[in-house]
This record gives sequence, C-alpha cells and structure tokens, in this order.
Amino acid sequence: MAEIWVIGHKNPDTDSICSALAYAHFLKLKGVDAEAARAGEINEETRFVLEKFNVEPPKLLEIAKGKLILVDHNEKEQRIAGDYEILEIIDHHKFDFSYPKPIYILCKPLGSTATIIAEKFFENNLEISREIAGLLISGILSDTVIFKSPTTTEKDKEIASKLNKIVGLDLIEYGKEMKKRGANIEGKSIEELILRDFKEFNFNGKKVGIGQLELIESDEFLEKKEKILEEMKKIKERENFDSLIFAVTDIMKEGSTLFCLGENELVGKAFNVDLSSGYAYLPGVMSRKKQIVPPLKEVF
Amino acid sequence: MAEIWVIGHKNPDTDSICSALAYAHFLKLKGVDAEAARAGEINEETRFVLEKFNVEPPKLLEIAKGKLILVDHNEKEQRIAGDYEILEIIDHHKFDFSYPKPIYILCKPLGSTATIIAEKFFENNLEISREIAGLLISGILSDTVIFKSPTTTEKDKEIASKLNKIVGLDLIEYGKEMKKRGANIEGKSIEELILRDFKEFNFNGKKVGIGQLELIESDEFLEKKEKILEEMKKIKERENFDSLIFAVTDIMKEGSTLFCLGENELVGKAFNVDLSSGYAYLPGVMSRKKQIVPPLKEVF
Repeated sequence: MAEIWVIGHKNPDTDSICSALAYAHFLKLKGVDAEAARAGEINEETRFVLEKFNVEPPKLLEIAKGKLILVDHNEKEQRIAGDYEILEIIDHHKFDFSYPKPIYILCKPLGSTATIIAEKFFENNLEISREIAGLLISGILSDTVIFKSPTTTEKDKEIASKLNKIVGLDLIEYGKEMKKRGANIEGKSIEELILRDFKEFNFNGKKVGIGQLELIESDEFLEKKEKILEEMKKIKERENFDSLIFAVTDIMKEGSTLFCLGENELVGKAFNVDLSSGYAYLPGVMSRKKQIVPPLKEVF
Repeated sequence: MAEIWVIGHKNPDTDSICSALAYAHFLKLKGVDAEAARAGEINEETRFVLEKFNVEPPKLLEIAKGKLILVDHNEKEQRIAGDYEILEIIDHHKFDFSYPKPIYILCKPLGSTATIIAEKFFENNLEISREIAGLLISGILSDTVIFKSPTTTEKDKEIASKLNKIVGLDLIEYGKEMKKRGANIEGKSIEELILRDFKEFNFNGKKVGIGQLELIESDEFLEKKEKILEEMKKIKERENFDSLIFAVTDIMKEGSTLFCLGENELVGKAFNVDLSSGYAYLPGVMSRKKQIVPPLKEVF
C-alpha cells in the first residue's frame, strides 16, 4: 500500500485521472512513495485514453484515509469522503480552501492541471516516457476542448506540442477521436448524462450542482428538452439542490445550452438571459470553470 | 503609478515587507510593471533592515484598489481593506482563501515567504543584487527567529546561506542584532507592544486576535502581568474580540508566555494548560503560525 495517494476530484474527468497518474509517477522519480487513486468511475473518454497508452486505471477509493495529494480540485464539495491529511494541492481551478496548517499549494490559471504537472517534469529535467507524455497531452486536450475553450492559454499549446515530440500524434485528430468517444451517448439514460461530468458547489450557503455534457453536435440530444428538465427535477429533489444546472456544450458550434432548475431568475441574471422556460443558449460558452462558475458565484 | 501592487499583510513584519520588495523586483526583471506596497507602519526590526541595506520602504497604502499580488498572507482578516482584484498569492501560512476565479498561487510549508521568493530568483537564473539578497536573508532570519523556530526547514538554511554568498554577513550575529532592534520596548506602551505584531483570525465564526512579542529575554517585561491583562481587556472590548491572545516569546529561553482573555478554558485545552489565571508558560512554543494557530483552529 502506498504511503501517499494522489487523487483527483469526484466524478473524475480525463485531466483528473491523467494528472493523478502523472504526478504520482513524478513523485516516485523524486523518491516519494506515492500512488495514483481515483474517487469515482472512469468515463468513456478517459477509458479511451488509458487504452490508447496501455495504462492501468488508478486504484478506486470509496473512502480515503491516510495522506492525500489533491490534483485538479481543492474545494471540499469535490473532494473524496474520508478522514485524511492533505499534503499538497496542484490545481487550475478557483480556490475555496481552508486547512489548519501550511501545505504545498501550486495553482496556475492554465487550461489543465496536466499542463502544470508537465511543467514540473520539464523544470526538474525528468525523463518523460511515452505513456506519461500521452496521458499529459490527453489531460490538456480534454480540459481545453482541443484548445477551443477560452480557458486555453499559449502555455497549454506550447506544453502539449513539447510533449508531443515524445508521442508524435496529430493532436487535433487525436483530440477529436478522444472527444468523440467521450461524447458517445448511445444507450445512456438522460440521468446518467446529466451526472456524467457533475460538480457540486457551495455558493454562499446554497447547494448548487452543475453538470456538463460535451457533444460534438448537440441538436439531436436537445430535441429531448422536456425529458431533460424532468430528469433534472428528480435529481434536484433527491439530492436537495437549491439550484441544478446542466450545460449541454456543442463543440462544433462553440456554445452551450444551459438548463436550470431552481433559482432561474438569479441564474438567468448571471448570464444575461431569460431562463423562465428552463433553458437558454449561451453562444461562446464552453467552460464551466471560466464561464459558468464565476458569474454564478458573483450573483449568489 | 504601478499597474500592480505587491503587498504583505496588515501590521507588516520583516518577511512581509522584504518579500514584497523582492518580489516586485523579480516581477520587474520579468517585464511586469509591479511595485511594492505595505498595509501598515514599518516596525523597528524592519526599519533596521531597510537602513542596513539602504532600501526605501514600500509605499504605504491606506486602502487598496486595482490589482494586487499578496505575499506572506492569504486570509481575508489579514488583507488590506479596499476593492481590488487579486492576481497572485505567494505565502507560507495556512490557507483560508476563496476567490471566484483561478489565479496563480504558490504556497510552501517553509520558514518564510522570503525563502520561496529567493527560490524563484534562483530557478529563473536571475541576478540577485546585494540589496535584494540582504532583504531576503532578513525575511528568513526574522520569520525563523534566527533558525530557532520549529517552522525552520533545511531549505530556509540552505537558501539563506546561498544568498549570503552575495552579502557576506555573519548570519547569527546579524540576526541577533536585528532581533535586538526589533525587541526594543523602551518607551513603548503595553498596548503598542500587544499590537506590534498582531493578526486577526476567524475561527469557526469567532473573532480571535493574536499578538506576539518577541523579546531576547522576557523576565523583566513579564513583571507587568496584571497591567498586560488590563490593557488586553481594553483592546478586547474596543475591538469586540471573542478571544484575545498575546504571546510573549523569549528567544533565549525558546518558549512563550501566553496571555488569554475570552474563552480561556477552550484556549487552555488547545495547549493543555490551565489559563484560569489569564496566562501560562508554553515551553518550546516560538511560532504563532505553527504552534499557536493550528491547535486553536482545532479547538474552536
């Protein structure tokens, strides 16, 4: 058993899983007995990445104890349950974090946590294997939506292309293939799709859940608007959310349809749209982190 | 006027002032239009340092606006008043920080913020002038109480000695001289001494103030215990503290006498002492950050 677990957020996405694997490897090279873990099921996009680079998924923890290093998250609502010590945080999200003693924290406003971890490999002149480079590239491409998200920085592109000298992919084609696998909604229930990439926030005491579904094209899925709102209602009531939000992102159109149940007037104000029907299209909105969470935090 | 202010906490200490000056210089070398500022009066120890290295004090801000980089603090209670954007944080304290968007954060559990900033100079291969090296050494020696505080790490010693290749001081002698100037209590009122190095905390909704006075020897000052408690009572009532704590640290004895007004039973429990008389001696306790704040946060 490892002394230290490196773990991403609940409902892990590709950046969380790949960053945990890569940073655990980084620490091992530094002589630290750390192992990657995960706080939930691997999604289809991430499964594609792990198969592509022939890497085993990190160990699933139901509950955590001992010593943890958090990657790709910091807020309590997104952390795994359990009673544990936090040793470090490496993240690229907004901060809402309180801890009774000083720890190592590195947060950069970049497109992915994988970018930050790749920088650490380069800064420390550590050798990067094809597997690790592939994982880090995948984390970057996934979180930046193939460099289309407004969270994308020049640094993300530069690091991805530097890593790609080791792997030699067609980055855009590989990214599309990965997103296509991730956007596979065949045979999935609407509930599953709302919760596929779901994060819980505490906005000024209000419990707000925000799901995001990235699709190459969203038109067909959006024909089921009433069914989506119906399923959201069930989740909202079951989990006692004050507001439940679901963003259906159309990668090709570069925008999201935002569904909302709860404080629709307030949420509508955040995006300057009328949400009285339960939904509205937000052109250009691709990023929950940069374009959905901050205006919500502002109005709540 | 600078585009960006680099600023330490309210009631600035030597590490806060020297880190702000050094990091503003670092940013200028990196082409960023940043200038050092301060959120309060320069204390005697810091005045000695600035005179020694012939450096002007940072600009005093009563209230801040525009863009700020916070060094040596993160918590709201310790930040300057005003309406401003926070761009970055470099710190070595416990975290209690919430912000609506991702920013650059670097926090390391080291003895001083100056150590972290010196590392940034070395990592970036930037030239360090005698003035900047002197300021950084002073920040390290001040916050680690000349390497005696349990917050001291091997890294602090290593960085101080690396910096000292530029300055060529007798580090221990220089540290003692600096602390002696800082510990000068002649002609000062007890109220001034309680508030000299004072920080406010929010522990689970309770407003707790913690002052610390470092003295080379504390015996003479401690003859005035009743007067100290009397002055503390005035401050507590005037500022509406739930608990007011004052640690008189004896550098030679390597311990602190803790005065407490407020929730004495709870505070006593944190340190396993009886505070019913209003004070107790805590052998080995030198650091507010590492030895006073964490057990208090735990019990509150």
